[in-house]
Amino acid sequence: MTPAPGIEPNSTTGPTPGAKHPSADTTPAQLEQALAAAAAAAPAPAFGSSEPSVRAGWIRAVADALDAAKDELVPIAMRESALPEARLTGEVARSTGQLRMFADALEEGALLEVTIDTADAQAKPVPRPDLRRVLVPLGPVLVFAASNFPFAFSVCGGDTASALAAGCPVIVKAHPGHPELSVRTAAVMIDALKQAGAPDGTFGLISGFDVGVTALKDPRITAAGFTGSVPAGKALHEIAVTRPEPIPFYGELGSLNPVFVTQAAIDARGKDIATGYVGSFTLGVGQFCTKPGLLFVPSGHGLQDQLVEAVGGVAQAPMLNDRIKSGFTSGLDRLRKVDGVRVWSTAGDGASLLQTTVPELLARRDEILEECFGPVSIVVEYNDRDELVQAVEAFDGNLTATLHAEDADADLARELLPLLTARAGRVLWNGWPTGVAVSWAQHHGGPFPSTVGSIHTSVGVTAARRFQRPVAYQDTPDAVLPDVLKDSNPAGITRRVNGTVTTAEVTR
Amino acid sequence: MTPAPGIEPNSTTGPTPGAKHPSADTTPAQLEQALAAAAAAAPAPAFGSSEPSVRAGWIRAVADALDAAKDELVPIAMRESALPEARLTGEVARSTGQLRMFADALEEGALLEVTIDTADAQAKPVPRPDLRRVLVPLGPVLVFAASNFPFAFSVCGGDTASALAAGCPVIVKAHPGHPELSVRTAAVMIDALKQAGAPDGTFGLISGFDVGVTALKDPRITAAGFTGSVPAGKALHEIAVTRPEPIPFYGELGSLNPVFVTQAAIDARGKDIATGYVGSFTLGVGQFCTKPGLLFVPSGHGLQDQLVEAVGGVAQAPMLNDRIKSGFTSGLDRLRKVDGVRVWSTAGDGASLLQTTVPELLARRDEILEECFGPVSIVVEYNDRDELVQAVEAFDGNLTATLHAEDADADLARELLPLLTARAGRVLWNGWPTGVAVSWAQHHGGPFPSTVGSIHTSVGVTAARRFQRPVAYQDTPDAVLPDVLKDSNPAGITRRVNGTVTTAEVTR
Repeated sequence: MTPAPGIEPNSTTGPTPGAKHPSADTTPAQLEQALAAAAAAAPAPAFGSSEPSVRAGWIRAVADALDAAKDELVPIAMRESALPEARLTGEVARSTGQLRMFADALEEGALLEVTIDTADAQAKPVPRPDLRRVLVPLGPVLVFAASNFPFAFSVCGGDTASALAAGCPVIVKAHPGHPELSVRTAAVMIDALKQAGAPDGTFGLISGFDVGVTALKDPRITAAGFTGSVPAGKALHEIAVTRPEPIPFYGELGSLNPVFVTQAAIDARGKDIATGYVGSFTLGVGQFCTKPGLLFVPSGHGLQDQLVEAVGGVAQAPMLNDRIKSGFTSGLDRLRKVDGVRVWSTAGDGASLLQTTVPELLARRDEILEECFGPVSIVVEYNDRDELVQAVEAFDGNLTATLHAEDADADLARELLPLLTARAGRVLWNGWPTGVAVSWAQHHGGPFPSTVGSIHTSVGVTAARRFQRPVAYQDTPDAVLPDVLKDSNPAGITRRVNGTVTTAEVTR
Repeated sequence: MTPAPGIEPNSTTGPTPGAKHPSADTTPAQLEQALAAAAAAAPAPAFGSSEPSVRAGWIRAVADALDAAKDELVPIAMRESALPEARLTGEVARSTGQLRMFADALEEGALLEVTIDTADAQAKPVPRPDLRRVLVPLGPVLVFAASNFPFAFSVCGGDTASALAAGCPVIVKAHPGHPELSVRTAAVMIDALKQAGAPDGTFGLISGFDVGVTALKDPRITAAGFTGSVPAGKALHEIAVTRPEPIPFYGELGSLNPVFVTQAAIDARGKDIATGYVGSFTLGVGQFCTKPGLLFVPSGHGLQDQLVEAVGGVAQAPMLNDRIKSGFTSGLDRLRKVDGVRVWSTAGDGASLLQTTVPELLARRDEILEECFGPVSIVVEYNDRDELVQAVEAFDGNLTATLHAEDADADLARELLPLLTARAGRVLWNGWPTGVAVSWAQHHGGPFPSTVGSIHTSVGVTAARRFQRPVAYQDTPDAVLPDVLKDSNPAGITRRVNGTVTTAEVTR
């Protein structure tokens, strides 16, 4: 296994698990070691060119090891993130389920997108050669871990899982919010990969802001994933795309996740909507990228008392760390002072509910539509259908947009859904945006500024595509082709042959 | 149809077809008109949200109109590009065949990538909602046309076809090398779209370098495609990705397309290889992005006389324009003066063959591996297998890499193919890289610097993916979903349902 610079528990240069802050910055020598190991793991016959079923086995080994280490890891995560046990235990299951989903997709063939066109001497205007396309790994991938999901968007999160599935070695830049957890998670993963036979350098961990920037500029890094703030994401994006050799940078930045409620929905389910809304925007102390930041309801909804009561009933809970707490406090303070914004409920600096109207929002759009990370949300009242449409149109890109409506609203829904589609990556009906299912059809991404790179997702099977490029082999003999491209389709994967999706072998 | 700023044949402000230089720069007012029309065509219920079969009909109408206009367009192209009639006629067929391929893929469902996961209340760790993913258009796309393929990589080329197929309105920045052809092609396309019922603004043409840059910076432009030189591509890329709202920029820049020949291949087919090589690097006066710039052969190949004779037999032909001719002349002059490079054959400033050896190439790598656009190529002799491998490893990213080998070379091929795969988007066996088949499995792209954005292709069905982003609909009733996501699958498209590819309807 890789020398694992800076993360070996017993390393003399690395951090010491159990210390309060084990994340001393990775040294330049350690970073060089990590990059060299990752680069060495990339070319054949190492990680990148491994057979899909072999790679799937390595990924399942990581999942199994993380599940087995849950009882050790979750308490560390609780101490470092202040999140509760049940949530963190579920997050481990989500992360390991995600790894297994990618392993399954690798074996099914979906991650390879094998496409075969057999030769056609009669093709017009010119004869067509035999062409066989497959996705291959880009090379070492740098992942900037997030703080708010210590498992699912951190060391063993979706960026890591999808890059490993793509066949890319991964270097994770640890988030300083959970340093010991990062070190221990990495150690578990590295050990599992080693035991499973994956090459050295398949996975590494680094620490330190400047170290991350240095790695991002290194020519051996071929792509980067990021989850975090808009300013940090924009700055790192600019570094990635203006390098001498530009690389793709996939950044999930910020999102307001507006929810729009029709009169019919209020009439039918007003109280459930009020309860569900408060539950969603205060879930995990409001520290979700999919937290609903605004709820648009018709004037005269009559739900103020119930909303205020629900917010008052939310148990106080610590935030992830002092920096986030301080950002929330100042953001809330800023929002409260915006003209036209009223405070409906606030528990000191805890869960807070604000209120405004669509005309007031439109008058101070930029002030009101600035994300405040934490348990605050704004009820926005609209007077009529025109104001509702204007409200939808006030938004830039978001990860999600939600509509609460009834069957009788079908015409309105058909008008609003295209507008919501233009502004969000996931459109929900009568649900709440927090909670992102990991599945084939999931999309977690959205137009700028919610992500840089709206054509890609960070959750779901196609997340691997961010770290792959196609290669087409022309007229290449079966004997030297990768197994997945051979006529006989030995692994029985799904392929598109002459335009038709099939698992059959190719006859030529 | 769009006001077609600057391109309406009878417009008082636009260019006059038949004039020698009809491409007066688009004025700011005309550009604003084009952008506004494209933006208006993007949202529902206009081009972007049209049903796939309707959109396919519009695209086929464009193909039919271009085929019908061939006798008018080809002579203009001959005059403006100096390319011969047969080549240009074939290029029209290639372009219209490409449009029809995208229309077919739209109707098959491949371009939509519909993925449906039905709800699963028993899913662990949490119940799973119903999720339905589909690719939607980004919005107006700006295409920078190339000079060397007046049809296939210009106004009606692959970028335009794939963006229209994706559902994006397109604005083409005309290449100044064939201004009248650009105007006439656009007029044919616009008329066909109008007749077929496509919304105004679906297609527009602009002219002028600064105008193109202004358009690239406009917030209504959501993505850009480019084919051209490395410096121009890098400059435009930087503008696109550092805008306040960064957009994807897909640039095809430059490529050397090396060809590696084994001793066994020389023994078996030396003379055919010599003839094929000269034919390929002089095809179209060497003005192909896939021109083989270097041929690696074992020392003692004994083909010098035949190669020189073949080059001497190449008919002189004019290049595309004076700027390209001048670039070729100075590039050839530069290459001839590099230490260790010898001239084997040159017809004044016409087709030229140079020679060097692997050690000399490695000693002056950057000088020798600088692309010279035009009919020149370098024979590079290697002494042994080590030198052959070193030669392969000397290359950065390329569109293509080619191996000429025999069955007896299988072991060598298995060593070289991964190295070639790491450096090229298309790997050919016993063929020549010029000529890019348009098909499902084609990939035209490659690692930097051959393209910016190596994970994408500009030729083949997946080219449309560059201009689409996914949207997932969660728990949305069938009645308000787009038809392609409905349970009943009314159009019978291919979809992935709960992990399995099928055209069947969904039961839930």
